[in-house]
Amino acid sequence: MGNGWISMSKRLSETDGFRIVETGPIPKKAVMINGLPDVGLVGLLASSHIITSLGLEEVGSLESELLPPMIVLHGGVPKSPVRLFANSSLIVLISETAIPVSLLRPLANDLVGWAQKNGTQLMLSLGGMAVANRQDIDTPKVFAAISEKRLESRLNGAAEILEEGYIVGAYGLLLRKCTESAIPAIALLTQAYYNHPDPEAAAAALTAVNKILELKVDVSELLKKGEEIRLRSKDMMHRTQEEMLKMNKMHEYDLPPLYG
Amino acid sequence: MGNGWISMSKRLSETDGFRIVETGPIPKKAVMINGLPDVGLVGLLASSHIITSLGLEEVGSLESELLPPMIVLHGGVPKSPVRLFANSSLIVLISETAIPVSLLRPLANDLVGWAQKNGTQLMLSLGGMAVANRQDIDTPKVFAAISEKRLESRLNGAAEILEEGYIVGAYGLLLRKCTESAIPAIALLTQAYYNHPDPEAAAAALTAVNKILELKVDVSELLKKGEEIRLRSKDMMHRTQEEMLKMNKMHEYDLPPLYG
Amino acid sequence: MGNGWISMSKRLSETDGFRIVETGPIPKKAVMINGLPDVGLVGLLASSHIITSLGLEEVGSLESELLPPMIVLHGGVPKSPVRLFANSSLIVLISETAIPVSLLRPLANDLVGWAQKNGTQLMLSLGGMAVANRQDIDTPKVFAAISEKRLESRLNGAAEILEEGYIVGAYGLLLRKCTESAIPAIALLTQAYYNHPDPEAAAAALTAVNKILELKVDVSELLKKGEEIRLRSKDMMHRTQEEMLKMNKMHEYDLPPLYG
Amino acid sequence: MGNGWISMSKRLSETDGFRIVETGPIPKKAVMINGLPDVGLVGLLASSHIITSLGLEEVGSLESELLPPMIVLHGGVPKSPVRLFANSSLIVLISETAIPVSLLRPLANDLVGWAQKNGTQLMLSLGGMAVANRQDIDTPKVFAAISEKRLESRLNGAAEILEEGYIVGAYGLLLRKCTESAIPAIALLTQAYYNHPDPEAAAAALTAVNKILELKVDVSELLKKGEEIRLRSKDMMHRTQEEMLKMNKMHEYDLPPLYG
Repeated sequence: MGNGWISMSKRLSETDGFRIVETGPIPKKAVMINGLPDVGLVGLLASSHIITSLGLEEVGSLESELLPPMIVLHGGVPKSPVRLFANSSLIVLISETAIPVSLLRPLANDLVGWAQKNGTQLMLSLGGMAVANRQDIDTPKVFAAISEKRLESRLNGAAEILEEGYIVGAYGLLLRKCTESAIPAIALLTQAYYNHPDPEAAAAALTAVNKILELKVDVSELLKKGEEIRLRSKDMMHRTQEEMLKMNKMHEYDLPPLYG
Repeated sequence: MGNGWISMSKRLSETDGFRIVETGPIPKKAVMINGLPDVGLVGLLASSHIITSLGLEEVGSLESELLPPMIVLHGGVPKSPVRLFANSSLIVLISETAIPVSLLRPLANDLVGWAQKNGTQLMLSLGGMAVANRQDIDTPKVFAAISEKRLESRLNGAAEILEEGYIVGAYGLLLRKCTESAIPAIALLTQAYYNHPDPEAAAAALTAVNKILELKVDVSELLKKGEEIRLRSKDMMHRTQEEMLKMNKMHEYDLPPLYG
Repeated sequence: MGNGWISMSKRLSETDGFRIVETGPIPKKAVMINGLPDVGLVGLLASSHIITSLGLEEVGSLESELLPPMIVLHGGVPKSPVRLFANSSLIVLISETAIPVSLLRPLANDLVGWAQKNGTQLMLSLGGMAVANRQDIDTPKVFAAISEKRLESRLNGAAEILEEGYIVGAYGLLLRKCTESAIPAIALLTQAYYNHPDPEAAAAALTAVNKILELKVDVSELLKKGEEIRLRSKDMMHRTQEEMLKMNKMHEYDLPPLYG
Repeated sequence: MGNGWISMSKRLSETDGFRIVETGPIPKKAVMINGLPDVGLVGLLASSHIITSLGLEEVGSLESELLPPMIVLHGGVPKSPVRLFANSSLIVLISETAIPVSLLRPLANDLVGWAQKNGTQLMLSLGGMAVANRQDIDTPKVFAAISEKRLESRLNGAAEILEEGYIVGAYGLLLRKCTESAIPAIALLTQAYYNHPDPEAAAAALTAVNKILELKVDVSELLKKGEEIRLRSKDMMHRTQEEMLKMNKMHEYDLPPLYG
């Protein structure tokens, strides 16, 4: 038996953030829609529906050493849970895993850098806003935080603007980074159940997206399959809730900030 | 569809600590007051009151990859939760987010480095000291830990000096770093409720600050609005408490150190 | 007493991942079996049994700054809990400590890099798949996730192929990395108790290994010593369960992924 | 108000491990005793008693960005909680804070590097070993794990040698590192209460130290002040227990390792 102490393997240190791997054509000057898992999975459900309805193609994935240790099998092929889909004018980002709190700032920075490189014309982030009395609300209201005042007109009356408050999570960071980088950005926050998948809230978000982007994505399908979606996304909601707890996501908006 | 595996985005690695971004004039040889969230939010409440009373202007923010993923909206503009306010002789630092335990040493190091560059004449940190029988105390007592003996005279009788014990949190680290860097530093620790916002303790701290800096900040306002402040800062207290738990902040001072 | 502030010690920064230390001859073009602690400790029990049955020799260890702070005493000699055993055609990796979640990606990357260097012909990972009704199952079923379609034939009918779903933990990452690096890889996942050591599941896994590799490891011993094994590995199971909780390992496979 | 975005502060990145700051003369070829907080605080209590009894002088401190955010005030001076004391032939390390799990490997590496530089003749680590029936034991037994076989004779019958098992915590890592660096090392593990300060166990450890090093430290004082010590170190025990929980320290030794 040999005795030599030989160091055999040296991992090449990757960046602490994300590597964006492009596997298909990325449209320039596109609108980018972000559907990360969040309150009520509003953004993920709405974005997945856009991908299916518009027949977007898979064009890339996000890779990071710090993502949860998990892969997704599709047709027997192991894939990253964070992927990009696109057609010629639209890019949609979805994540089938909750993004760990420590990765949210790198994600915001890397996405905005990538968006800038592609001349992205609008960053449209879809998220939920927890409301205690969700069961009493028929049509969830959509709120918007914007990166610059002149975007008010682009909302087309689809959402009410947020002036004061906290935004916890990836979308607040994205917004602030976009303000700094002069990329127009809107975060649409739709009233939703905190920890139950909420296809009705996703439908309300989609209706606002249709108005803002002048799309015609059919919302009825999303409402019809409500129960099936709730079941399929139960586990996803569960994982998401844990990350939200870590960042105290529930309590935002409840109170005005301490110092104006 | 393309097949190229191309690494598209590379995040520029920032420092592990804080970037201090100046957006207004920073006074030289100023007194710096630190109002980080802590026991009873004493420092944050007192410092916010100083900013309003003296009409200080926003002059900068602290940025870090490791801050919680959160922004503050003020007038629809996304901002950092950790910001600097100043007039010609006073700089006040407040944080509208609890600083994670892992950022406290970088914060202490970076602040002291920045203070040194600006010729800061005194670092005055405002914090709370949990006492079990807080409800039986009418006028909370103020204690002081100092970076060098000769500061005793500057206290002007406003606080009682701490000789033995632990100090857990940012202020102990700031004190020790100031001792090493020969910047005069005082940590004022006022008796307070551990996990309830304590405007009365903040008023007692402010009275001591008035004495030490020969200011005339009106304290009555802080007492009058007590109930409103308690309500508005409930969520902030909650987030702060979690970080304090992580560092076992409650139990300090209870007992003399093990080895003298 | 001296006063000099002299920095005396500077730790040489190692890689963030693993250092693979070879202490014996490493066979080229071998099959590598991975027996990391996991659901029911299936892989660890099966792999330990292979080492004993085939009389493999210790040929190396894996070292990392980020492994739990623990050593194993064997014959009074302190050793790493993660070690490599081999004969002329087989390498077996076992870990006597749960691998922390943050080390799983580095582990997958470093192992595949090392395997590539050694011309490894097959990566065979042994793990468990939690099933709720385990007590009602006599012969646990074995499932396989594979890195490329043509491996189906190598399974020799020993396992059923997984087409859709999540894989949480080291083995999913290993699989995906092997796909990228064109190293044939199979992850065998055997139905098992989630948090009880499951020698019967290990025996079922071994039977599949025998079929795939055309080995003749005797399984009866593993079944006979069932109770003793369960007792000896209780603590190991306990530590493993904590890491599995951190990565939500229990809920995988329960549901189809959200987006196909 | 200015508008320039100017990065003002850049923290100099320190090592991820420890900086050992020497403030007094460090003896060469000395024996080094490590009294880190651990099961029953055995090592810390015994080591503090050695410092007082032999009148050792403070000769240095250990600094790390990753230590808990805490300082110790002694005579109004802010100090590091991890410090070195020495006379001409003995160095004692004590920590008045629990060392976080993530710092244990850097600590072991840096201490052994520093010991090597100083020609340390023996590393003697004092720790506790949890026993369920501690209250039924009058004279706690002392066990020893050693870095090389020939140290058996140096034990002088003061402790029973451990041959098989796990060692969790700093001392196991220290031992393994000493084996690699050819520094003679002994870890003395004394039966103790898991989570109560145990001055009687500390006395038993000291008796073994006296035998091994041929010292005459008076043990009676330690026993007489038992109740006072228990009270004073309650908080320290509490903090220590949390770190031990994180590394599953309780369960070691309970069972033989899985694979021999």
